[in-house]
Amino acid sequence: MEIVLLCVGKTEPAGWTVAIEEYQKRIQHYVRFSFEIVKPEKSSSKIPITQVKLQEENRLLSKMKLDDIVILLDEKGSSFSSIEFAHFIQKQMNKGMKRLVFVVGGAFGFSPTFLSKFPIHIRLSNMTFPHQMIRLFFSEQVYRAFTILNNHPYHNN
Amino acid sequence: MEIVLLCVGKTEPAGWTVAIEEYQKRIQHYVRFSFEIVKPEKSSSKIPITQVKLQEENRLLSKMKLDDIVILLDEKGSSFSSIEFAHFIQKQMNKGMKRLVFVVGGAFGFSPTFLSKFPIHIRLSNMTFPHQMIRLFFSEQVYRAFTILNNHPYHNN
Repeated sequence: MEIVLLCVGKTEPAGWTVAIEEYQKRIQHYVRFSFEIVKPEKSSSKIPITQVKLQEENRLLSKMKLDDIVILLDEKGSSFSSIEFAHFIQKQMNKGMKRLVFVVGGAFGFSPTFLSKFPIHIRLSNMTFPHQMIRLFFSEQVYRAFTILNNHPYHNN
Repeated sequence: MEIVLLCVGKTEPAGWTVAIEEYQKRIQHYVRFSFEIVKPEKSSSKIPITQVKLQEENRLLSKMKLDDIVILLDEKGSSFSSIEFAHFIQKQMNKGMKRLVFVVGGAFGFSPTFLSKFPIHIRLSNMTFPHQMIRLFFSEQVYRAFTILNNHPYHNN
């Protein structure tokens, strides 16, 4: 199986890459894991937000495959503990799907259409944090999930 | 006022310092902000966990002042949105306290005695994450809180 974090956003500022790459490297021991980044749509007071979202969501859709399992990272999604998240990944793997695609939206979040098209929504925290933090946080949780599933001592709580 | 993140832990691995220092620098624009780190106690199967916690908590106590407001970061604490967290900080500032000390415990968390001695508990996420991530995540939330309180466009949600 492969896990993809698909984001609307920019590439990370230099200060973040070392920490993110460290987790990416560790995850490869267990599963294929990659980021896919699509460009944010320029927004201004003249362009309706719905239009911005639509453009960004079309870019996201262009990166998806028909047989992906798609999970949206959304502030109204379900909140998991790290152990629950590990079991969630295990459950998806048991279905024999090829790719698990976690999606981070743009600055304005997802449209109602997109949210209902992909009904699995996960929330990492009640707090809002920047994209580079989501990538780092998420990479660490995926690594942690596989250490939990493989009884590796990294997660000792 | 001054905000302190007081942690049981080690100094950050090199890959994290750039990102953490970036937020520390930005926060200084609004408030004094610093980390204080105390050493974790060595643990082994021969040493009771209660003993490890006690040693670590004594080290934490040695860094506190009588008139600090102390808040424990604990997985069973209250969950705040970024805006609620900003208002929480504002409320503490309004009390005219000198220092707001947020405390991160060691690998085994806090003892019941410590938890009841300092009854304000905050949870950043339901997920477990490593110390260097807590420092980065927390620094970003403090910066975000002050941008919210000062109507700076950084937090546009």
